[in-house]
Amino acid sequence: MAAQIEETLKRIQTSDGVIGFVIVSNADGIPIKSNMDDAMSVRYAGLVHQLTATSQVEIQKDDPNDKLTYLRLRTKHNEILVIPDKHYTMVVIQKPTGSRSPM
Amino acid sequence: MAAQIEETLKRIQTSDGVIGFVIVSNADGIPIKSNMDDAMSVRYAGLVHQLTATSQVEIQKDDPNDKLTYLRLRTKHNEILVIPDKHYTMVVIQKPTGSRSPM
Repeated sequence: MAAQIEETLKRIQTSDGVIGFVIVSNADGIPIKSNMDDAMSVRYAGLVHQLTATSQVEIQKDDPNDKLTYLRLRTKHNEILVIPDKHYTMVVIQKPTGSRSPM
Repeated sequence: MAAQIEETLKRIQTSDGVIGFVIVSNADGIPIKSNMDDAMSVRYAGLVHQLTATSQVEIQKDDPNDKLTYLRLRTKHNEILVIPDKHYTMVVIQKPTGSRSPM
C-alpha cells in the first residue's frame, strides 16, 4: 500500500505544471509529507485546513449528511486541488491550466 | 450586453445536470438573480459568500497581489461552481460529473 502511495505521489510530482504537493493531517492542519520547503508546506497546509473546515461547516448547514469530497481553487497565479480523506487531505499546487472554467 | 447575459444564463440552465444558478452580490451576499426558490437561493448565496470571503483572506495572506478567480466544490450530492467577478459572483449548482477528480 505504501508503495502504491509513493507511486501516486511520484506520478503527481512529475505531471505537467505541478508545482508541489502537501499531505495535511485533518486533526491539526499540520503537513505530514511534502515536496516543497517547510515555509511553503506550512502555508498551504494552513490555507487548506481553514478552507476545508469552512466548507464542511457551510455544506453541513445545508445538509447534515453531505460532505466535501473535492475542492479546486484557482487564483491569478496558482491552482490548488484539495482531496480530503478520513484522516489526511491531499493538496496539489499547479500552474493554472487552460480556460478559467471547465463549464 | 444584458441580452448576452440572458443568453449565457439560458445556456447554463439548459446544460446537462445543472440544478440551478444564483448570482450573488459581493457587497452583502444577497442573491440578485436565481432560477431556484428563495430558500435555496439564500442558502447557496450564504454558503458561497462565506467560502469566497475565507478563500480571499487565506489566498492574500499568502500573496497580497493574488486573487480568487474560480472555485469548485464537490460534495457527495452536489457540485458547486463559483466564478467571482468585481461586483457579483456567479454560482452554478450541478449534479456531480464523472470521476471525483480531473487530475
